[in-house]
Parts: sequence; C-alpha cells; structure tokens
Amino acid sequence: MERIVLAFSGTLETSAAIPWLVEQHRAEVVAVTLDLGLGQDLEAVRHRALACGAARAHVLDVREAFARDYVLPALRAGAMAAAGSPLAVALSRPLVARQLVEIAALESATVVAYGSRHTADRARLERLLRDLDPSLAVVAPAAAAPLAPDRIGAYARACGIPVLAPDDAAVRIDRNLWARTVECGPGAALRQEPPDDLFELTRAPDATPDSAAYVDIVFECGVPTAVNGVPMPLVELIQSLETIAGAHGVGRSERNPRGAGAGWRDRREMFDAPAARTLVAAHEDLRRFVTPPVLDRAAAHLARTYADLVEAGEWFTPTRTAIDALVAAVEERVTGTARLKLFKGDCRVVGRHSAFGPPGIAPSRPAQPAGVRA
Amino acid sequence: MERIVLAFSGTLETSAAIPWLVEQHRAEVVAVTLDLGLGQDLEAVRHRALACGAARAHVLDVREAFARDYVLPALRAGAMAAAGSPLAVALSRPLVARQLVEIAALESATVVAYGSRHTADRARLERLLRDLDPSLAVVAPAAAAPLAPDRIGAYARACGIPVLAPDDAAVRIDRNLWARTVECGPGAALRQEPPDDLFELTRAPDATPDSAAYVDIVFECGVPTAVNGVPMPLVELIQSLETIAGAHGVGRSERNPRGAGAGWRDRREMFDAPAARTLVAAHEDLRRFVTPPVLDRAAAHLARTYADLVEAGEWFTPTRTAIDALVAAVEERVTGTARLKLFKGDCRVVGRHSAFGPPGIAPSRPAQPAGVRA
Amino acid sequence: MERIVLAFSGTLETSAAIPWLVEQHRAEVVAVTLDLGLGQDLEAVRHRALACGAARAHVLDVREAFARDYVLPALRAGAMAAAGSPLAVALSRPLVARQLVEIAALESATVVAYGSRHTADRARLERLLRDLDPSLAVVAPAAAAPLAPDRIGAYARACGIPVLAPDDAAVRIDRNLWARTVECGPGAALRQEPPDDLFELTRAPDATPDSAAYVDIVFECGVPTAVNGVPMPLVELIQSLETIAGAHGVGRSERNPRGAGAGWRDRREMFDAPAARTLVAAHEDLRRFVTPPVLDRAAAHLARTYADLVEAGEWFTPTRTAIDALVAAVEERVTGTARLKLFKGDCRVVGRHSAFGPPGIAPSRPAQPAGVRA
Amino acid sequence: MERIVLAFSGTLETSAAIPWLVEQHRAEVVAVTLDLGLGQDLEAVRHRALACGAARAHVLDVREAFARDYVLPALRAGAMAAAGSPLAVALSRPLVARQLVEIAALESATVVAYGSRHTADRARLERLLRDLDPSLAVVAPAAAAPLAPDRIGAYARACGIPVLAPDDAAVRIDRNLWARTVECGPGAALRQEPPDDLFELTRAPDATPDSAAYVDIVFECGVPTAVNGVPMPLVELIQSLETIAGAHGVGRSERNPRGAGAGWRDRREMFDAPAARTLVAAHEDLRRFVTPPVLDRAAAHLARTYADLVEAGEWFTPTRTAIDALVAAVEERVTGTARLKLFKGDCRVVGRHSAFGPPGIAPSRPAQPAGVRA
Repeated sequence: MERIVLAFSGTLETSAAIPWLVEQHRAEVVAVTLDLGLGQDLEAVRHRALACGAARAHVLDVREAFARDYVLPALRAGAMAAAGSPLAVALSRPLVARQLVEIAALESATVVAYGSRHTADRARLERLLRDLDPSLAVVAPAAAAPLAPDRIGAYARACGIPVLAPDDAAVRIDRNLWARTVECGPGAALRQEPPDDLFELTRAPDATPDSAAYVDIVFECGVPTAVNGVPMPLVELIQSLETIAGAHGVGRSERNPRGAGAGWRDRREMFDAPAARTLVAAHEDLRRFVTPPVLDRAAAHLARTYADLVEAGEWFTPTRTAIDALVAAVEERVTGTARLKLFKGDCRVVGRHSAFGPPGIAPSRPAQPAGVRA
Repeated sequence: MERIVLAFSGTLETSAAIPWLVEQHRAEVVAVTLDLGLGQDLEAVRHRALACGAARAHVLDVREAFARDYVLPALRAGAMAAAGSPLAVALSRPLVARQLVEIAALESATVVAYGSRHTADRARLERLLRDLDPSLAVVAPAAAAPLAPDRIGAYARACGIPVLAPDDAAVRIDRNLWARTVECGPGAALRQEPPDDLFELTRAPDATPDSAAYVDIVFECGVPTAVNGVPMPLVELIQSLETIAGAHGVGRSERNPRGAGAGWRDRREMFDAPAARTLVAAHEDLRRFVTPPVLDRAAAHLARTYADLVEAGEWFTPTRTAIDALVAAVEERVTGTARLKLFKGDCRVVGRHSAFGPPGIAPSRPAQPAGVRA
Repeated sequence: MERIVLAFSGTLETSAAIPWLVEQHRAEVVAVTLDLGLGQDLEAVRHRALACGAARAHVLDVREAFARDYVLPALRAGAMAAAGSPLAVALSRPLVARQLVEIAALESATVVAYGSRHTADRARLERLLRDLDPSLAVVAPAAAAPLAPDRIGAYARACGIPVLAPDDAAVRIDRNLWARTVECGPGAALRQEPPDDLFELTRAPDATPDSAAYVDIVFECGVPTAVNGVPMPLVELIQSLETIAGAHGVGRSERNPRGAGAGWRDRREMFDAPAARTLVAAHEDLRRFVTPPVLDRAAAHLARTYADLVEAGEWFTPTRTAIDALVAAVEERVTGTARLKLFKGDCRVVGRHSAFGPPGIAPSRPAQPAGVRA
Repeated sequence: MERIVLAFSGTLETSAAIPWLVEQHRAEVVAVTLDLGLGQDLEAVRHRALACGAARAHVLDVREAFARDYVLPALRAGAMAAAGSPLAVALSRPLVARQLVEIAALESATVVAYGSRHTADRARLERLLRDLDPSLAVVAPAAAAPLAPDRIGAYARACGIPVLAPDDAAVRIDRNLWARTVECGPGAALRQEPPDDLFELTRAPDATPDSAAYVDIVFECGVPTAVNGVPMPLVELIQSLETIAGAHGVGRSERNPRGAGAGWRDRREMFDAPAARTLVAAHEDLRRFVTPPVLDRAAAHLARTYADLVEAGEWFTPTRTAIDALVAAVEERVTGTARLKLFKGDCRVVGRHSAFGPPGIAPSRPAQPAGVRA
C-alpha cells in the first residue's frame, strides 16, 4: 500500500486532504505538523489529523533548526535588509521541504503532499522538494476539484470532518518564531493606515512606555549570542527580543504592492516582527562597522541575490551554498556589540563596539543602568 | 592687476586669506559669500570681508538654485537613500564651484581661491572647478605656512583682523537649507549616544507631542510640489517640512566611521535633517510603488553610483548627465501622493497613491481634514 | 464578420492556420509577411497565403525599421556584447508585434494570430502585444489539436493545402538582416565542432584570403554611418559589412547550453553574423575609448539588463525607455572611427580615433591603401 | 648596523640604489631577485648585486608559488576576463611583497626597499607591504634626488657601477611566467597597429601553420591539470600552452588608454600571453557551462571587484579572502574538459564536457588521437 507524507496544519484544506488522498491514491496518509513557533499547543492538531483518517500523525518542534539553519544564514547574509521584509514565510519553506523528505525516507513513502491552494507557494515547495530529492512525487490536493473553495465544505461534511471556516482568501496570517505576517488582498480596509488590531506582537507606539529602552546585543562571528549581557541560545534570544521590542512598539512594517504593467503584486504584506527588526538593525550596523567598504558593497549585492533565492524557493542550490561561503568569511569579523535604543516604535543603533572596528570610537556599555533588561 | 575671487564664509581662515592673497599675489580680492540657507543674516559677513581688505564683497542668496539644481536631482536619483546621509555638504560644493566660475568670468578674474584647510574638501572643489573651467587657476590659502592653525592667529592680528576663535578642528558644523551636519573626530564625547544638544532642528523625541502628525506630500514627475494640500515652491516646501518634522523629532541620524585596515574613516557624522528625512522617505516609497521591479533595481544600482559621484566632486561629468537622463525617464511616473506618519522621532509612510500605481490599493486621503495634527 | 491578422511565414504551420482560423472563428484572415532581410523573394509566400484561403495577403519590407528601431538601440546599449549573441531573433519579435497591432488597427481586426508552436516564443509575443494593445485578443493556432505535429499533415491535405515538409523540430534556422541563427537540440551531430555547412554567410576560415583586410567604421553618436570612407544608410552598411567580414570568415560563434539543475537550456545556438560581429566589436571599443570608466561600468551593468529584456519580450516597457535615455547621453560621445583587422575568422580592433578620446593616441587612417574596400 | 632588504632586478635604478642605501642609511643591503619566469639565467644579476656592494644577494625561483598562489586564484575568480588583461604585472606585486617581508624576517631587517620610479607601482607595493607587516619601514631609493633619471648615470659612475642604459621611460617591458607585457606612452609609434616585433611569444598570425590545432584542457575544481591528455604540474602546463598557442599566433591583445576628462590613462598596454589567453578562454567557457545562471552573474560581478583589487594592491585584504571563499564553492563544479581550436591568431572553444554540465551535449573527445596537430 502506498504511503503519503502530508504537511498538515489543521486547516480545512489540509484536513479534507486526508480522506481525499486515501480515496484517490488508496494510500496510507502520514500527517506531519511542524512547530515553527506558532505559540500554540499543537496536540489538538495532531488529534484532528488522526480524526480525519491519518494513519499516523507527528508533531515536531523544529524551532531550533528553523532559527539556526534558515533564519540565521539569511540574517548573516543581509537578506532581510535587502528584501525589506523578515522573509519569515519564505524561510520556513525549505525547512518544511526538508522535513517532508526526511520523514518520507523514514516512512518509506514515495509521495509527499502539501496543502496550500496558492499556486506560487506550491511551485516554490515543488522546486525545493525536487532539489532535495527528484525521485519523490509531489501531490497537491488543493488543486483537485472536490477541494475547491466552493465545494470543500460539502466534501468535508460528506467525509464526516468537522467543518471549520475555510481560510479567508483575502487575509492570510502566518506566525512563526521569526515574525507574524499578515497578507491582505486589495479592498476597502487597505485604504487607510493599517489598524492597530492587525498587530499582536507589538504594542501600538502611543501605548508604549514613556522612557526609552536600551538593548545591547552581542554577536560572535555574526551569530547573536547575548542580550543585555545575558548569554542565550538562539531561540530564547529571539523570544526575549520579541518581548522587549514588542513592548516598545518596535517591529511593525509593511511591504506594499508594487511594480507596473502586468506584474502588479496586488497584495499588501504587513509584518509584526520585533525580534527580526532589532536583530537586523543590530547586525547590519555592526557588519558595516567592521567590513571594508568594497567588501560591504559586494556583500550588499549578494544580499539582494540571497533574498531573491529565498523567495523563489532556490534554497537547496549551488548559488546559496556559494554565497554562504563568502558570508562566512565576512562574518568572521562581525564580533562585537551593538546597542539599540527602542522608543515609541522607533529603533536605532546608538553605539557599537568591535575589536575589528575603528579604535577611537567603539563605545563599551556606560556605567549607568539603562532601560529594559531581560 | 590680478583679480582673485575668494569663497568667503567669515571664518578666521577665510578672513586671514584676504590680506595673504593681496600680499602674495599682489591681487585685488573679490569676496563671495553664498546664502545656502544658513539661517543667519550674512550682511555682517560682507562687512567683515571689506574690513579684511576685500575690494568688493558679494552676498548671494542661492537657496533656490541649491534646492532646484543640486538637491532635487540627487533626491530624484535616490542618492541620499543610497548614501545613508543627506549629502548636504557634498551637494553644496558644485554650486560653490559654479558660482566662483561665474563670478570670475564677470569680474575678469583668472584665479579663484577657497578657504577650507581640509585636503579632501579642496581636492573635490578643485575637481569641480577644473571640470567647469580648466583654464582657471585655483589657490588654497589655508595650505600656506603663515595660515597654519598654530600661526594664523598671530598673522591675523598682524594684519589688524579681529581674531575670532579658530575653527574647532574636532567638530565641524555645517548648516544649509537641506540639513545641519555635525562631524566629530574620535574622542570621549563619542563613547555615548549623541547628546541632545548636538541637534538644533529636531526636538528630542521624548519632548515631542504625544499624538502623531500625518503629512501628505504631493510629487509631480518626482518633484515635491505640495504639503498637506498646499502647493509651495521648493525652498518653502523644504522649510515647511523642516518645521513640521523637526517638531516631532524626525530627522536625526548618524553615519559612523567604518571600513577596515588603512581606510578607516575616523570621523562620525551626525545629521539633523527633518526635511531630507521626510522627502527621501516619501520619494523612495512612491518611486518603488510605480516602477517596474527590474527598473527599480537598475535605478537603485545607479543611485549608489550617483551618491559616490556627489561625494567625490564629480558633478560636472558625463556620468552624472547620463544618469540624470535615465532618472528623468523613471520619474515621469513618480506622480502622486505619499502620506507620512510622524511620531516621537519615527517617520513612516502609511499610504501612497498614484495613477501609475496598482489600482486596488492606492488610498486617497480620507474624508477628515488634512494638515498637521500635533 | 470577425477579422484576424495572422503573421504568415509560409511554413506548414502558418499555412494550415489559415483554414483553421476561418473555420474556428468564422473569420476573415489577413496574412502579413514581413521581409526582415531573409534574402528571398516573398511574392511566392504571398500567393501561398491567398491559396490557403487568406482574404488578403500583405508583404512588407521592414528592413529599415528593423535596423533603425530595434537593432540599432540594442547595439548602442551594448546588449549584444552583454548577451554574447546577436539577439537577432529576439529583436525581430517587437517589430512583428508592432506590425500586427498596426495592421489590426488598419484592418479593424480585434484578433491577431501567430504561428509558432514554441511556447516561449508565444509567451514573449503575447507579452509584447499586450504591452502595445491590451485590448487585442491573441490566438495561437499551433496550440490547437488538429495542428499538432503528428496531425497537421492530414489536416492540411484535407484542406487542399500543398504539404511541405513540417519544420524540423531539432533544427530551427532563422535568417534576417542582422544574423543567421541556427538552433539545434541535443543529438549526435552536436558532439563535434559545428560543421562548416551549418554556416552560409561566412566562409570557413581556412578558405579565406591569405592577407588581412582592414575596415574603418565611422560612428556618429553611436550610429554607424560609413565604411571605409563611404557613407551608407544603415541597411546597406550592414549588408556591406556582411559581405566583407563574411569573406574573411568573421562572424561565426555559438552559445552553448548552460545552467544547472532543473534549468538546463538544452539547445545550442550557432550564429552566422558577420555584420553583427564587426559592428559590435567596433562600437564596444570606441565607446570604451571615450567613456569615463565609472560610466562605462554603469552602462555595462545596464547592457546586461537590456539583453535580458530583449530576450524576455519586455521591449515596450518603461525599463527599456529609461535605459535608452541613459544610452543616448552616453552615445553622444561615441563619435569617431574604429579600425578593424579581419583575418582568417579573427576580428580585432587595431586603431580608434575620436575627438572625445585621449589626444596623443588616436590614429587616423594611414596613407597606404589597406585591405578590402566595398 | 641596520639591514635593508632590497628587491633587486639588475636595472640601473636598482643597482645604484645599493650604494645609495649603504650611504644614506649606513645599512647592510641584502639584495633579493625573484625568478618569476623571466626566461633568463639570473646568476649574472646576483653577481651584479654583489658588485654594487650588496652584503648578500639571493636569487629565488618563485615560479611555482606565483602560478599556484597568485595566478591560479585570479584565473578561478575570472579576474583576467573581467579586466580584459592577463594582470601579469599586478599579480606579481603581492608575491614580491610577501618575499620581501619573509626575507626581512629571516634577515632580521626592519626596512625593505623597492626600486621602481613609478609612483603608482610604489603606492601599491607599499599598500601590500603594510597589509602584511605594518611595522616594516619601506624606502624608495628611486625617489631620491641623486637617483633621478638625469643624474643617476653620474651617480652610478661615481660609485664605480658599470652604467647600463637607463630604463626607457616610454616603453616598459615586463615578462613573467604568465605574460609578456609591453606598455608604451603616447607617441608616433602608436598611431598604427602594433608592429609584429613588439611580440616575442607569439608568431605573427600570417606566419603560422595553415591548419588548425586542437587543444584539450582538463580542469579539476577549476585547476588546469592536463593538456591533450597529458597531466602536468601548473608551471609546466603554462609553459606548454605558451609553446602551442604561441606557434598559432594566439595571445596577442592590447588594452587601450581610456576614460575622459582628467582621468585619461595615457598609456597603451600590449600583451603577449598565449598561455593566459587559452586558459582564460577554456576556464570561462567551462565555468559558464556548469554554473547556474544566477550564480554565474554574481560571480561575474565579483570578478570585476577581484580584478580591481588585484590592480590596486589590495591582495592581502578581507575582501579577497571573502571572494576566494565564494569562488572555491563555484569551482567545485568546474571539473571537465574544454577543447580549444587555435588558428591564425584566433582561439575559440569548440567543445566542452563535464559531469556537471547538460547531459545531452557534452562531447567527449572523438576517436581520433589527441595532441597538437599543427
């Protein structure tokens, strides 16, 4: 009997995919749910997979791998600064692909399935899966007629699946360890400044403390290792910065539709990303501080290429590997401390120090106490 | 009798240069003082030139030419965004050069003189003057031994010139219409966050109004033409934005020393530039909104080149002319409105509208009345 | 009755398209055949169109427009040098699109049709047509089932159309004024050096004259205007260089399949392009000779972008217009003469002269007679 | 007693430098002569150093280090293709600097001296020496008044040094393993095509064999390891290609003065570089064949930066190290064979093969025997 590994998030789409795959492929379905830092208990999702007919259902906490193997390389390569976005959704795709491939190998499955009904998502995931293992077949249940938006409710009910509301096509929310991303289609709500209630991780700037917080972030070879003097593993460090910066309203941004002619990207993306905002600001400043200008420009050019390949699903390619090699050489010098000032939604670097930086200026932490400390 | 046109700012260096030029060159000195938006009455400077022995002394209000012919092209080319600085001092040099050349022609002078004792400044000004008129001789009095920092006081007193304090070599302050620039050498004061009293045009963020201001800036073919619905000439528009944004603490930034090895740029630059900050933010956002991505990247690449040539004194070159031609084509579409939100030192674009932008999203101003709401 | 304008080349595909369009669309078909410099009488093609059922058949000599409006801008922009190919086929597509749109307007047709069965060709042509006139419908008969390669013969015979051999899918030959292009799929014949008989416009290098020819090409603002002292219109100049350079074996080149992973471009392109080779060499050398290095690099970067947009069918876009504006400024200085030496397939610039070049070195033509003169 | 290590080439400049250094610095002079592949016995040069008063004189064969540590990295980085020149002189400077520093350490010398009277050469060498060992003092005897061109003859005679003709300032010839470089100032001789007698390593194309030669070059990870099936160490491989290609007139090129305004580079460089020409052509073709296009473009951009840093004397910098890291990743795939056709001065790649290339096309060598077929 065939076995299919399905990336399962618990939405109506992925839930209805289980009986559909069983029926169409006469296959056993193994559901895999990844905890990328959603901030929810995923045990209920696992039970739902089983209730829908999955033979087995795995929930894996992959936050550490996500932070170390995907977020960190892109941070060091300057990709977020180049893209003007945290790239949080795009960076999760190669991890999803790798997990599907690994579990397919463990489960002796030759088919993997992915639930998104978004064509671009699917194309990127298929690219990633093909680069990892060209022999795997990829199935996209959402493209099947019975699972189309107008028919999926009926199909699910017929299969005895409790029908949640279908995904709102106009608003997609994705949250992981690195950022909360809200993507909206065009419409009346967009004609104004984004409303405060779109954001969860950051307070509205006018509701934040009236005195600034200072945060010192230590980097070693481009890896953030301590906040305000306290060494932390990467996942904890990201969560800590999320708390501190979010409290000061730091981390809201948006990327607008742009382009011209046929190529309009007609959706607006909003980011709620306190940790990404502070880490990117600190890293960019410190790297520029210690890098010869000629090399810094070369690196900036490659950062643009890196952001493109992250967004295009070209993670498992010689291009990324080669840029990573250059970045590793650059980041050897990115060792030191950057001090951020957080105030009413604004975040700026107000001091930096490195043994590789200009000697006269590098400020070490002043004696007096300063701001929030975790 | 030879005639020399001297760029005269009223400092001790330029004052002592007058008797020195008269004596060394047996020449008549014509002093030229440019009002680039210093915000002071320059009549006293004119009198000082005459008192030092100038045959004639001109004060010229060149603010409009500065804004239109130097600031605006660089803004449209994206040079400030690429440089991470308002480029305010660098943009004034080609105007100074052009004025010296024009007045030298009017005065039938074959020599021009420039007061700065900074080698890099002088090299750039000489490049600019040579590109404009290779036949003009350029004299740099500050390089002469009697005008060296340790001897200039005695020289001036001997010439009967009232001795002001010499320029503080550690801190250089330059103010013009576009920005106030403070450049410091390394030293103890730099080991902290820049103190509030370094800034004049912007309030400290924690002393600003507790509610945000919204500002709508209209662009026509990349030229800002109205603020909050009120059409204004460029100089007035810049001054208006300086007032509004400065009141909200918007416009402070710094550019740190950077590099590596022998190439350390060992001075830190701070910018007090409310108008530059808001106009650059609005223009960049609107341009990106209406420009095809491929063209936007090509333009970003050229913006970097443009910033470099501004800083290097290569304004009067085929390179600038050629980039200007491309920029003019790009900016034909930069027609529309960007809305900025100013709050506690933070400035962000929260809406944009253009007939060339994506149709569904472009927000026009909501019904409520426009204008600053501090 | 609907009217359809069909780009008609006389191949079996385009011939069979006529009865198919008449039948499917109940439309009148107007056939348009463009003379881009194929070097054949096209009257027979016109008769064939009528014989296949076209209501009207036009043959237009567009060589001058092709040279002036498409080849020349790309030459001046450095696109051929950047692409490593004459771009001859890609440059013909925007002209074809424009002619179809113009004739559709004259004929009050709302549909245009294009014969190629190559998906990439079609996508590019549709992009070009949409940018010119988004209201036109585009029909692709070759995509229809009865016109598939294995069925088209029977269909044509059933329609009473004399059946020529179908296009050889493995080898595509395209000839126009600018180059002869031979594109081959993978196969045994490719395992060696390209055989001499693939080339028509160039002699085999070992069959060429034993003494070198020198050719002087004059450019005015980047436009080639004379060869060996004889002023010529552009079309004639290209033909003249084709004769001279072809006789010396100059102009053969190939572009190999390249890439990695999924993106293999699995076809090898060979170019027989004596005029393109000599004009590109002369223009690149002269431009580099008169252009400041900083500008030359900026232009080289844009040349790469230009080549990409030519190949992608993005001719009628703001990107091309903007680059053209910069190129026009650069080319103002590309006025002068380049001397080429042609010998046994090798072509090199051995002298150049321009009023904008360095003064000491610019060689004018020596007194003694030199080489072939047209 | 102070000890100075002098780079000694045997010219009048370096010969007269010995007594001058002894006299001025009251120092012991240790002469170092490097064999970079000049193709002459350097024992006579060693004797001359001793005759001029050197305390010790070393002759070191550094050809292998030159090929492996300087030529090869630049070849793999694509620097020669980007520069349009073999970079042979520029690549020798970092090796000279490193040897001076190493011998200074062995000899406990704190001063090194370099003979060139060319300001640009000296600035680059000083940059290289400073990056390697900032504590070393660098002395430039050629800048001293008694060693000026018009006085050096008298000075040398007074020191009892046999006076050779001084260097011809108008023509500089440099030969090493990688290329012979001839640099000329402006003048009458430049108004024509370069005369044949400027070239030594290449025959005039019209005096070469009437049938083409084919050469297969094998690369392993970007390192050329075999020619026509015969494995060779790098130095021998370069010499072998010099013989084969030189016999077919392959390897002549020039780089002309260019630029505009003040920046004219008023010297013309001619290159006689058969080995460089063939290796660069083969490597570029093979790299492009196996590299994804996106990565190939990124690498091409860095190749430009690499060429610049070679020419600027920035070899011992983090920039080069970082680019080398990316190049190493790219070159892992540059494993395979390129076949060149050499005929009458023309050199082109007519076949290539790699396990990393497109599968259908890669030609392996046909059945007939390999080797040069002149």
